[in-house]
Amino acid sequence: MTTAKLSGIFVPNMVCYDGHGDVNEAETRRYIDWLIAKGVHGLYPNGSTGEFTRFTVEERKRIAEMVADQTAGRVPILAGAAEANVKETLKACEHAAELGVAAVAIVAPFYYKLGPESVYAYFAEIANNSPIDVTLYNIPMFASPIDVTTVRRLSEDCPRIIGIKDSSGDLPHMIRMIDAVRPNRPEFSFLTGWDAALMPMLLAGADGGTNASAGIVPELVTRLFDLTQSHQIEDARRLQYDIVRLFDAIVYHAEFPNGIRAAIELRGFQMGKGRMPQSETQAADLEVLRKTLQCLLAEHGFTNEPVGGCPVGDAAESDIAEIAEVISTVVTELQRRGMI
Amino acid sequence: MTTAKLSGIFVPNMVCYDGHGDVNEAETRRYIDWLIAKGVHGLYPNGSTGEFTRFTVEERKRIAEMVADQTAGRVPILAGAAEANVKETLKACEHAAELGVAAVAIVAPFYYKLGPESVYAYFAEIANNSPIDVTLYNIPMFASPIDVTTVRRLSEDCPRIIGIKDSSGDLPHMIRMIDAVRPNRPEFSFLTGWDAALMPMLLAGADGGTNASAGIVPELVTRLFDLTQSHQIEDARRLQYDIVRLFDAIVYHAEFPNGIRAAIELRGFQMGKGRMPQSETQAADLEVLRKTLQCLLAEHGFTNEPVGGCPVGDAAESDIAEIAEVISTVVTELQRRGMI
Amino acid sequence: MTTAKLSGIFVPNMVCYDGHGDVNEAETRRYIDWLIAKGVHGLYPNGSTGEFTRFTVEERKRIAEMVADQTAGRVPILAGAAEANVKETLKACEHAAELGVAAVAIVAPFYYKLGPESVYAYFAEIANNSPIDVTLYNIPMFASPIDVTTVRRLSEDCPRIIGIKDSSGDLPHMIRMIDAVRPNRPEFSFLTGWDAALMPMLLAGADGGTNASAGIVPELVTRLFDLTQSHQIEDARRLQYDIVRLFDAIVYHAEFPNGIRAAIELRGFQMGKGRMPQSETQAADLEVLRKTLQCLLAEHGFTNEPVGGCPVGDAAESDIAEIAEVISTVVTELQRRGMI
Amino acid sequence: MTTAKLSGIFVPNMVCYDGHGDVNEAETRRYIDWLIAKGVHGLYPNGSTGEFTRFTVEERKRIAEMVADQTAGRVPILAGAAEANVKETLKACEHAAELGVAAVAIVAPFYYKLGPESVYAYFAEIANNSPIDVTLYNIPMFASPIDVTTVRRLSEDCPRIIGIKDSSGDLPHMIRMIDAVRPNRPEFSFLTGWDAALMPMLLAGADGGTNASAGIVPELVTRLFDLTQSHQIEDARRLQYDIVRLFDAIVYHAEFPNGIRAAIELRGFQMGKGRMPQSETQAADLEVLRKTLQCLLAEHGFTNEPVGGCPVGDAAESDIAEIAEVISTVVTELQRRGMI
Repeated sequence: MTTAKLSGIFVPNMVCYDGHGDVNEAETRRYIDWLIAKGVHGLYPNGSTGEFTRFTVEERKRIAEMVADQTAGRVPILAGAAEANVKETLKACEHAAELGVAAVAIVAPFYYKLGPESVYAYFAEIANNSPIDVTLYNIPMFASPIDVTTVRRLSEDCPRIIGIKDSSGDLPHMIRMIDAVRPNRPEFSFLTGWDAALMPMLLAGADGGTNASAGIVPELVTRLFDLTQSHQIEDARRLQYDIVRLFDAIVYHAEFPNGIRAAIELRGFQMGKGRMPQSETQAADLEVLRKTLQCLLAEHGFTNEPVGGCPVGDAAESDIAEIAEVISTVVTELQRRGMI
Repeated sequence: MTTAKLSGIFVPNMVCYDGHGDVNEAETRRYIDWLIAKGVHGLYPNGSTGEFTRFTVEERKRIAEMVADQTAGRVPILAGAAEANVKETLKACEHAAELGVAAVAIVAPFYYKLGPESVYAYFAEIANNSPIDVTLYNIPMFASPIDVTTVRRLSEDCPRIIGIKDSSGDLPHMIRMIDAVRPNRPEFSFLTGWDAALMPMLLAGADGGTNASAGIVPELVTRLFDLTQSHQIEDARRLQYDIVRLFDAIVYHAEFPNGIRAAIELRGFQMGKGRMPQSETQAADLEVLRKTLQCLLAEHGFTNEPVGGCPVGDAAESDIAEIAEVISTVVTELQRRGMI
Repeated sequence: MTTAKLSGIFVPNMVCYDGHGDVNEAETRRYIDWLIAKGVHGLYPNGSTGEFTRFTVEERKRIAEMVADQTAGRVPILAGAAEANVKETLKACEHAAELGVAAVAIVAPFYYKLGPESVYAYFAEIANNSPIDVTLYNIPMFASPIDVTTVRRLSEDCPRIIGIKDSSGDLPHMIRMIDAVRPNRPEFSFLTGWDAALMPMLLAGADGGTNASAGIVPELVTRLFDLTQSHQIEDARRLQYDIVRLFDAIVYHAEFPNGIRAAIELRGFQMGKGRMPQSETQAADLEVLRKTLQCLLAEHGFTNEPVGGCPVGDAAESDIAEIAEVISTVVTELQRRGMI
Repeated sequence: MTTAKLSGIFVPNMVCYDGHGDVNEAETRRYIDWLIAKGVHGLYPNGSTGEFTRFTVEERKRIAEMVADQTAGRVPILAGAAEANVKETLKACEHAAELGVAAVAIVAPFYYKLGPESVYAYFAEIANNSPIDVTLYNIPMFASPIDVTTVRRLSEDCPRIIGIKDSSGDLPHMIRMIDAVRPNRPEFSFLTGWDAALMPMLLAGADGGTNASAGIVPELVTRLFDLTQSHQIEDARRLQYDIVRLFDAIVYHAEFPNGIRAAIELRGFQMGKGRMPQSETQAADLEVLRKTLQCLLAEHGFTNEPVGGCPVGDAAESDIAEIAEVISTVVTELQRRGMI
């Protein structure tokens, strides 16, 4: 069904809401068009950034349909298809097949944390019955981990499984997976979901990424991909450092994925009201983040500076440094308590 | 709406399946009757043990209806009501209210791990719009944690919130919660979901438990509750030790909640085929567990010994000791790698 | 050598410093006398609270000598004896034997995190060559964990090993250890180092505790021990709640063990200048903690209220609640980041 | 004092023992000569691989003296200098200064897990009093973490601090450190201690590594450094994959650093009897590892194949794959139990 190996930068695209938290189709379609026009290599609806767990089954189906319809074959689509159990997940796979997307992406079972045997059995049963190619989705911070051995076993036993999106951010883990699978399945695709390590992951052998930051600055992330693949190391490194700053701001300064939503708004889209209730403190924090993001984007010419201007020199980053400081305090506090 | 404080032993009841993984209503109803006849103080459908995430919305509704119908007011029901977002969760609350159950139990948001502000905002919005009393459900191993401050704030701001089920197993945490809430809300209920610490939790001030082991040996768990509440410390302790052995066997020897399902079968119920695919290795492991469980239950006269008999002396427990050994090796290995 | 089973409340006693961070012998001796006069059942120099890692080998020897000399047999002494390797540790055991202390306590190997096989081999080699009884010391937040199986194996193979001090704070873990060891070694002693769970640990079968809070309020901790052992559950529970508040204040509000040092000062001892450099922020934080502690102690009549008085009602605890709030924010932040 | 920025591959060199666990000076000197002859860029005695915690103060001094004497200025030396407290650590710094080594490396405080304020205060007090340049040593799996903000603050406030060795293995963390420090301190050195990510770390901006595998295959690790620095990406990647296999074998298949010791023996050195007692099971495991390592080294022509030959094809790696499998089972088991 897929003819080409999945590679390049896929956007795990968010959905625009209206003022009541319902899907704003028109604005979402405008956003899709913009992403494609900016050069992203693929789209990935119903992923973690796309808040798939906060939709009903019907909404997820509608989102996949809308993205497929709007994309109209201009770029390949990887459609999130995880549902409550294997039977329901296979229905989503069939729906995706009807839409003609490139492949589905299926996150490992979550809530209950399952061991490798269960994870293997789950994906094998899906792959053996799916009418469409399947990409594994490993995100150990949210779901049962898919370990190297399980990836290898699935790649050997299930031709329908054609790749993995890995959001662990662990560089040696990526190397171990590629080393275990590529000799037997050279067309198997390895995508990283950890934007802060995109350049090193590519240099270590990954084929591309599904990166939330590409939903904000598609120009930069695709340029980073090109620079890296053509081994323009110094230029790629400089850009990677900028992406780390952006990534840290959007991921660590607000509840995921609210920071991403705020940043996309700065590129000119009405993202609407998120589905998760927010406290006043959180709304205020988001305002602070918005200004920081606006300054970061203004540096690259993507927005105007916020009213009042941006701090001179490194001050824009100093907000982010403070965030990092809080995070590290937190980590250390837990270390001190012996909790990690 | 609720007149009495939630207390005693609630069973987070499993659902019986048929050979295809569909709900077996007749057998589930027979199981409900048996639990009530054995003296449990309440039921808790659509909890973690009840595999709520593996059902569709419609199935969860049907399960709540069936349990309410079969119980017919003999014991209070705590109905799991978490859905994809606040709007959908409120629909489940309305449905539960129509069924006349005592309260709903709502797990903190999962998949994404949210901070205290978000957890507060989530529960406050639900509580302020729910037509039925709400019990918080804290299970940090699977969902966003509900910390002491958040429990206190919610108890002060939301009269609809009338208790918490806590499955952290952390004794001082239970003390901190009770200390923070009980002075202002003496009728607020504290239930522990960690069977291995039931007696100490009760002695430290908890009102009861929602315990998976009560779905297997309701006689023992309610007896443990009675012995503890009447301060028959030595007898309670002996029974608690037995419950720890059972708990360890069902929780650490198979993917949760398969060990519980296997044990309930030994009490005479057709539990059917679980919804999560299992490998052959797992099926074999479950056979070993089944024999161990049968010996454990036979010690208390709940089943006959398995064919071939039980090992003499402590040998029945030695299987469990081995399990514990594996677990501890695992923990230590991770410590050695610096991962925990 | 030991005739009686170790039981009751041992104080992991701190050492008083002078203004340069050197040991103040006279004040330490006065503190030892006070602890004994207040009724503690034993002393435990060179433990974690006693900052054993921050002394030279010679200083640790001198501390053990001083405590033994000052105690003069009034209460049993458990002397910390861990050194750089087995050979050096055995020298410390010999020294302790010469001093006539009841037993040594040896923490599992730290820095490198070792697996159960190594932990077993380490303790077995020490026990097989030690001239004095040995207590295992399990503190998984700081050192390699000693798992249930390893405790059982060591209890079976090494008569010199006569007990364990466990600072995990995990109630079911205590039950599992006792269940695994007591049938064969009824005189084997189980002591908990987690003050916040002392009463439940005792009710679950532990023999006593080595508790830092007993170095601050020896009157309360020994009373808690007595109330619990005589099954005066309600009174014991009330006292345990107070100890949790104190424990949280001293452990989570300053770098361990600075909070304990500050609290002991409030009981009238010159604790001097700690060995770990402190920043100005930390010094200021410690001032805040000192006032909170003073109010906590004043409630029980152990000190006068600080100048300016204590806050009315629960305000004294509200500082501690804030601390707990910060901690829980921290935990949740990490959960959100998928780091725990 | 240091004239050149620290860069390239430093070997955290082990010490050879005799049959009683005492230092074998002659063999250690022969090993030092061999490492220098093979082209390593520097030596690093008394690091974690060098088992510094298992020596007495006097032994650590003697080791530093011996390495300095044998090296005789041929390569720079980074000498581990952490002792029980600041006063003792400063004595070790003075000793190192007298030996004329390039700099000392000081691990963050361990056993107690300290927060950033304490870590800052500790290093600042040392740096402000040290007669020799200081390298920070961050190894969060064993010691208190040194976070980005603390590294930045120390780099700004303490000219004596001239670099950091980071063994976190976290790629974005390295980027964040460099981004925070390099603009103000371009000569500040960043070395990675995580061999499995050496190439990506260098490409992301690190200056070199202190790598245990360079103590086994100095030829390969220095070649990997050269290939990476000259941007021969494909060749470097291939070599990095080999280093990952070796690293996994030595780190995850035996208690650290026993796997490294076994591998060095295969290069022809008498490593003697380690200081930590080993069980028979562990001795047997080490035999298996030794054969695996011998095959790995034979592939590159560094040893002969073991008696009986090496498995054909990928079988040599399959042992390592099994190890990885155990590890991942372990991780998943813990995830399932909600412990990480």
